[in-house]
Amino acid sequence: MLFLHDIYHIISMEQDNLYNLLQSIDTPDDLRHLSADKLPEVCKELRQKIIDELSCNPGHFGSSLGVVELTVALHYVFNTPYDRIVWDVGHQAYGHKILTGRRDAFCTNRKLNGIRPFPSPSESEYDTFTCGHASNSISAALGMAVAAKKHGENNRHVVAVIGDGSMSGGLAFEGLNNASVTPNNLLIILNDNNMAIDRSVGGMKQYLLNLQMSEGYNRIRYKISQMFHRWGILNEERRKSLIRFNNSLKSMLVQQQNVFEGMNIRYFGPIDGHDVNNLAHVLKEIKDMQGPKLLHIHTTKGKGFGPAEKAATIWHAPGIFDKETGERIVVDTQGMPPLFQDVFGNTLLELAQTNDKIVGVTPAMPSGCSMNILMRAMPERGFDVGIAEGHAVTFSGGMAKDGLLPFCNIYSSFMQRAYDNVIHDIAIQKLNVVLCLDRAGLVGEDGPTHHGAFDLAYMRPIPNLTVASPYNEHELRCLMYTAQLPDKGPFVIRYPRGRGSLVDWKCPMQEIEIGKGRKLKEGKDIAVITLGPIGIQAEKAITHAEQETGKSIAHYDLRFLKPLDESMLHEIGRKFKQVVTIEDGVLKGGMGSAILEFMADNEYNPQVKRVGLPDQFVEHGSVKELYHICGMDEEGIYKVLISF
Amino acid sequence: MLFLHDIYHIISMEQDNLYNLLQSIDTPDDLRHLSADKLPEVCKELRQKIIDELSCNPGHFGSSLGVVELTVALHYVFNTPYDRIVWDVGHQAYGHKILTGRRDAFCTNRKLNGIRPFPSPSESEYDTFTCGHASNSISAALGMAVAAKKHGENNRHVVAVIGDGSMSGGLAFEGLNNASVTPNNLLIILNDNNMAIDRSVGGMKQYLLNLQMSEGYNRIRYKISQMFHRWGILNEERRKSLIRFNNSLKSMLVQQQNVFEGMNIRYFGPIDGHDVNNLAHVLKEIKDMQGPKLLHIHTTKGKGFGPAEKAATIWHAPGIFDKETGERIVVDTQGMPPLFQDVFGNTLLELAQTNDKIVGVTPAMPSGCSMNILMRAMPERGFDVGIAEGHAVTFSGGMAKDGLLPFCNIYSSFMQRAYDNVIHDIAIQKLNVVLCLDRAGLVGEDGPTHHGAFDLAYMRPIPNLTVASPYNEHELRCLMYTAQLPDKGPFVIRYPRGRGSLVDWKCPMQEIEIGKGRKLKEGKDIAVITLGPIGIQAEKAITHAEQETGKSIAHYDLRFLKPLDESMLHEIGRKFKQVVTIEDGVLKGGMGSAILEFMADNEYNPQVKRVGLPDQFVEHGSVKELYHICGMDEEGIYKVLISF
Repeated sequence: MLFLHDIYHIISMEQDNLYNLLQSIDTPDDLRHLSADKLPEVCKELRQKIIDELSCNPGHFGSSLGVVELTVALHYVFNTPYDRIVWDVGHQAYGHKILTGRRDAFCTNRKLNGIRPFPSPSESEYDTFTCGHASNSISAALGMAVAAKKHGENNRHVVAVIGDGSMSGGLAFEGLNNASVTPNNLLIILNDNNMAIDRSVGGMKQYLLNLQMSEGYNRIRYKISQMFHRWGILNEERRKSLIRFNNSLKSMLVQQQNVFEGMNIRYFGPIDGHDVNNLAHVLKEIKDMQGPKLLHIHTTKGKGFGPAEKAATIWHAPGIFDKETGERIVVDTQGMPPLFQDVFGNTLLELAQTNDKIVGVTPAMPSGCSMNILMRAMPERGFDVGIAEGHAVTFSGGMAKDGLLPFCNIYSSFMQRAYDNVIHDIAIQKLNVVLCLDRAGLVGEDGPTHHGAFDLAYMRPIPNLTVASPYNEHELRCLMYTAQLPDKGPFVIRYPRGRGSLVDWKCPMQEIEIGKGRKLKEGKDIAVITLGPIGIQAEKAITHAEQETGKSIAHYDLRFLKPLDESMLHEIGRKFKQVVTIEDGVLKGGMGSAILEFMADNEYNPQVKRVGLPDQFVEHGSVKELYHICGMDEEGIYKVLISF
Repeated sequence: MLFLHDIYHIISMEQDNLYNLLQSIDTPDDLRHLSADKLPEVCKELRQKIIDELSCNPGHFGSSLGVVELTVALHYVFNTPYDRIVWDVGHQAYGHKILTGRRDAFCTNRKLNGIRPFPSPSESEYDTFTCGHASNSISAALGMAVAAKKHGENNRHVVAVIGDGSMSGGLAFEGLNNASVTPNNLLIILNDNNMAIDRSVGGMKQYLLNLQMSEGYNRIRYKISQMFHRWGILNEERRKSLIRFNNSLKSMLVQQQNVFEGMNIRYFGPIDGHDVNNLAHVLKEIKDMQGPKLLHIHTTKGKGFGPAEKAATIWHAPGIFDKETGERIVVDTQGMPPLFQDVFGNTLLELAQTNDKIVGVTPAMPSGCSMNILMRAMPERGFDVGIAEGHAVTFSGGMAKDGLLPFCNIYSSFMQRAYDNVIHDIAIQKLNVVLCLDRAGLVGEDGPTHHGAFDLAYMRPIPNLTVASPYNEHELRCLMYTAQLPDKGPFVIRYPRGRGSLVDWKCPMQEIEIGKGRKLKEGKDIAVITLGPIGIQAEKAITHAEQETGKSIAHYDLRFLKPLDESMLHEIGRKFKQVVTIEDGVLKGGMGSAILEFMADNEYNPQVKRVGLPDQFVEHGSVKELYHICGMDEEGIYKVLISF
């Protein structure tokens, strides 16, 4: 695939006077040649550039604005790319891209063949590690710090930049825990804006809010001085005692007061993350200190753009907007089918109103999966557990064990984080947990880290699970209804990002027999088996192919990947010599594979052609473009149908 | 399956006078009717019972001895099973089993159809949650505490018991983080013995060692009093000032001094975990306090059995031993093939001696996977990162990104914990990390939580991976040799628990072409395709079946699940109408499924029969028994071969 860093030279340079300094920065080296007093101006231009670009080419907005000063200070102080900066969650790295040779290509951000949505080592040597999923930066950076030591690259600095939201992820803690005992000179920058995508939650957040080390220490020292002063007792000997006491107080505080220091990670801060000169100054001061260290900075998500500062969740990824008025250009969705996530959110609330065992669990995605609908109406029945997918699942297991019925909603690609929890904490015990996988299939612009490509293949081997995917919004509602009936066991429902197909989505709900598919259309020559909403593309392709070839094509909606509808598949095995399977996930081990297993186990011998995702990571682009490239849109399916 | 709790009544009651009190304890209710002064005697008997049983029926020894007093105190103070005790890692729960109705059945522990190796809710109502994998107790218990609140069961207490080793797992941190902000009355007992299976590592361990909250606070208070006393200045007003100061000091310390308090989890301790009466007293004192709380106790792994106290790693699961002399009955392995893990360990060292990029990474299993061989010889090149599988993989990724070549060894079932890390942090970037999956396939007595059943199925869908399984020790060595050659990309090598097949295992090493299988035996009628050491059972079954049926059976060792040896499979597709696939993993999505996909994609139509693990969790028993039950031993394979 061709990336814009290869071709951006053919794009004419932007000549806007707004970017006087920025225009001269082709690499961080150029930045480092500027005098420090120019840095605020660089920040101003960089911020403006992000606002300008994002206003017409949508992307992740708030987090990148929040780290403008940090980004500039880091590349100013550190010798990138020789020094390593590891961003945790690439949302925030737009400034980094612009400063590292991708200023002009930035207008292609997230577009097909354009620069990638998140830093990617195969795009730029300044991008040190994949960073689509949260909380991996400390572990990866520690690896780099250890490698530098082993190679004798003693002057190489390694910096991990992690947000407070990502700090709630267990992986970040594991990284910290190990960083504290492995010889290294890692610098961790904790970017504390009290937000992930939604407001950050959890004890660690509270802990960080409380963490004003110097303040605490100074407060106590001040109180003692005051006391002594009032009493007028500070003679020389007592002054010495006081110093000794102060030292022991300090040593105790420094040793034990905060968890980082307690883990032998030197702690600095908190400092203002929007004062670029002070940031650069502090980074210079601490960068050569030996041993692992953490700098705690406070920033504001959306900094410098009023509306984004006020409503960080909305402005996390606001879509296009008017950069002068701050008005978001919201597409009129009147008359369009609903988002699948909203069908989920509304239906969950509806079900919770009649089944009081139902609770909702989300790892930091209440607005992303629309669980906020439940949480607003019944705050005590929705749990946002922070970025902590493993915990979300095991916590749901604990609730289910004692009689509640959790709907735990996790994006398909993030569910990879909770794989063992599904097996060990849910499936073995056959607990009544409903796992809803939003963003299943290709998600578009967020690219390979975010595609929900693997869930069908990795859920299918797990015993005791029911795994279903709805054809449309009505089916989603009925599957959700079914899953909350008594003793259905662990129940996975996966559905895609984006809109469904039915404007009139709010049907009455009824039970669907577990493991029961549907015959959507009779046919004699070819049987098409689909799973999920991709069946709608298949439907169109079937009509087209029948017209073109005169063949008669049956269409079955499998509905349940597990258990399989054996009677339906026996019918297909007996009646058809040509079968096409179509699924919105990887071919290896997926639904088509399940059909092949069934046919082999039952000694049917149809010719089976499988449509699905290939054995490679699919890059970014619009959903439509990507499905076309993968041969999974109407046209691609049509071609398979006429290929027999 | 029949479990011993169903049939133990037919086993004659043990009449040993050693167990005077224990004999009268059929349920914890009986324990609760004893006066507190009897508790030390109960502990003594319980400890003796564990020693007696384990000396002849091997199991997890040290951790259960370490929590004898805690177990007795918990069941004495809490109203189990109405109150919930959630054990983290069931190793430690033997005492719990003996006190909860399984005293007489305990002699069947870990045996086929006997009581389960770890607590299991389907075995006993006292077992609240599956606990084979570490670090899940806080999350599960929090779920139960929330459920109790929702159901209005306000008198129900929920207790999680977690070791300091398990505290390094990210899941435990995620649980803590969420427990601190979710309304609940959870009690977490941190059983601190400074050990997991191997000695525990990481910053959290250091943190816990430093954590002497009351001491720190008292030390400072004492110093202030001393100072004031020396100065003779404690008049009434000053006394009041001092009290005010003390309070503010305390409030600061209590708020901020330790991470638990900082996260709003009340912290108590540390106290001696072997003083049963004091433990019971403290538990009574704190159990009704509102809000989440943590009691930190110190225990000694192996407590009460001298040799086990001195060598905790060896006595974690010592096998059978002489309970009088403390001598372990070690089977003479002279002349036996080596353990696969030792072939791994020795070969890793051998390779590291010539390739200085190689490093080893293990999440808390240096002795279990024999990476300790490398760590002893080259301490700076082996990394034990603690119970932190996700971090182990991502940390390896970071090292690989900057030029090292990590061999990261994780048991197959624990690798489920690092699934996203493999996809997101390794595979997308095609990093040169060698993932060695020990304990692949059925592991025997540790049962369903520990079987390495799923790895082939869950690794196969991931793009960019090479996935291999060696037929024998020579193949393992050659695969390891191949994986460390330049630019081989991410490379998975999976092999089973236990011994190989070659006494003379130390062959010279040579490169194996990636994706190249081997034809082990010519044949005309049936093609058998195997992956891994199960091929040796197949070899015997083939000989037997040829003799019996007169058919000619070819045998192919696939070697690589990914990429497939397409030329070999084309040969099979062209030549054979009957194919048998045999693998040591789940049938759904596994190797047989890959063969079906290949045959379908290439329009071959052989009849394929697949041998592998069924779609259910396989219980515990000896490896031999379990493979027999699953039809995967020589006899089972033979039956399939003659069934055409």
